[in-house]
Amino acid sequence: MKKSAVCVLGTGLIGGSVLRAATAAGYDAWGYNRSETGVNAARADGFDVDGDIGAVLRRAAAADALLVIGVPMPALAAILTDIKEFAPECPLTDVISVKAPVAATVRAHELDARYVGGHPMAGTAESGWTASSSELFRGAAWAVGVDPGTRAEPWTRVVRLALDCGSVVVPVTADDHDRAVARVSHLPHVLAEALSVAGAGGGDLALGLAAGSFRDGTRVAATAPDLVRAICEPNATALLDALDDVLRLLTDARDRLAADGTLGELIDAGYSERDRYDTLDRWEITDVRPGDQDWLERLRAAGQRGGVLRELD
Amino acid sequence: MKKSAVCVLGTGLIGGSVLRAATAAGYDAWGYNRSETGVNAARADGFDVDGDIGAVLRRAAAADALLVIGVPMPALAAILTDIKEFAPECPLTDVISVKAPVAATVRAHELDARYVGGHPMAGTAESGWTASSSELFRGAAWAVGVDPGTRAEPWTRVVRLALDCGSVVVPVTADDHDRAVARVSHLPHVLAEALSVAGAGGGDLALGLAAGSFRDGTRVAATAPDLVRAICEPNATALLDALDDVLRLLTDARDRLAADGTLGELIDAGYSERDRYDTLDRWEITDVRPGDQDWLERLRAAGQRGGVLRELD
Repeated sequence: MKKSAVCVLGTGLIGGSVLRAATAAGYDAWGYNRSETGVNAARADGFDVDGDIGAVLRRAAAADALLVIGVPMPALAAILTDIKEFAPECPLTDVISVKAPVAATVRAHELDARYVGGHPMAGTAESGWTASSSELFRGAAWAVGVDPGTRAEPWTRVVRLALDCGSVVVPVTADDHDRAVARVSHLPHVLAEALSVAGAGGGDLALGLAAGSFRDGTRVAATAPDLVRAICEPNATALLDALDDVLRLLTDARDRLAADGTLGELIDAGYSERDRYDTLDRWEITDVRPGDQDWLERLRAAGQRGGVLRELD
Repeated sequence: MKKSAVCVLGTGLIGGSVLRAATAAGYDAWGYNRSETGVNAARADGFDVDGDIGAVLRRAAAADALLVIGVPMPALAAILTDIKEFAPECPLTDVISVKAPVAATVRAHELDARYVGGHPMAGTAESGWTASSSELFRGAAWAVGVDPGTRAEPWTRVVRLALDCGSVVVPVTADDHDRAVARVSHLPHVLAEALSVAGAGGGDLALGLAAGSFRDGTRVAATAPDLVRAICEPNATALLDALDDVLRLLTDARDRLAADGTLGELIDAGYSERDRYDTLDRWEITDVRPGDQDWLERLRAAGQRGGVLRELD
């Protein structure tokens, strides 16, 4: 079967990696980037990237391409305005790290009819086209939206792209997604920043004695601050819940340490839950087809129980 | 120059690695392990390890060996009682992760005259002889005590062993050490446990979406709980200070997020301090010789400013 066209808007680390992976998988794929540097870097590597958003989107409209929005959250509204003008009928997805705020902005631009949210769970501390890789998504989880009202046709195209990029697909609603990533992506970023500051509070002596636990615990603090803010702050409500949980855990441990010199239950609980993560079974959802009766509700329920999609019929 | 003898008491991950590294560096080195399994594992690899503590220590006394205590904190007093009985004149060091509580216990056994605290900053989530490696300490920082009253002769032997194992030596007093490692070693363990629990609070959906930031941020939560407690809890006072700092940072960020939707200064500060860590210069201390006037105070001051020893004359 001939693969459909894919048009990536924003060819940084994630969007650029989608463009590379889609091309490698045989899609007719091209992209847009705002900066001349980014355009030239992608072209130098042999990819079809242009800085003229009107031309890129007109081509997408003519080819009925799947649009993949790869710009950061602060640039979303502007790109949706362009899409509304030049390619309002194209199926539409995104790879932004929160889903409910993106969905709301898409609705505000009246582009929700063919929109399906997406979020590949992969990245590096580096950013930009030069850090992109066709293998970035291999084996990763790729969240794909199953919110009420989602249509089967664009959904199938988004899932197929994610699978063709080497990922497994986690079906999830926007709100469920945002609550989950607050805990496993945004909270780790905030803790890494706090550990970095508290560790450096010990001066060069402490930093000179730091080994693997500090290095790994602060790794993502090396991410560009503007990017961290663009990832975490749009998910403030869910991140507050996660922060309150961790503050409660740490305060309990602190009070117990002051009272009787032990860290209480935290150490056993942390070990047990890390083991749960290490041994997690990504079981395959095989009994739901897009368009089936209650398919969205059934996929959502399966995703909540840890189910993933590994292929489409 | 012929290298002096080294006797390692407790041949788990750290002690076992000292035995391997010292042997590889040309020392006449042997060890003691309490468990028959541990003894047999080391012997099967060709190392001279015995389960008879009296025999091992009598041999050390006859050879004037440097004793290296590699047992965990809870087993320290018992091994010191044996040393007091069989080898009270041997120079003595340890590789335990806190220093002031070890020094106090050594004093209580009246073994402080030839004692010099040590702590190689290296490890893995694995434990036991089978995880040990002669290369574990290569390029690592090895803290060596410079507390008032430290004698030059045992100090020189401890520093020489650390250097011969491939480490750089950070001169530090017991209290300074314990405050520093509370921030860069014990705090990372506690944060990893809390992140592990808070992440798993999102269920299998959240764990299935977890990627590098969660995996790295919780890595040390896979360490055996008893070992984590044995490492962290003896350092309760300094760990409380570090925990209070991180609680203040996280509470400020939480309140700011609730008030205006931003994470405030934490992100820039965390990035800046991680960069300080990444670019830290371990400058070499070259102007202090053991036994010089004020040598302990001068080494302590140099260590606090990030200085390390890379060789002995």
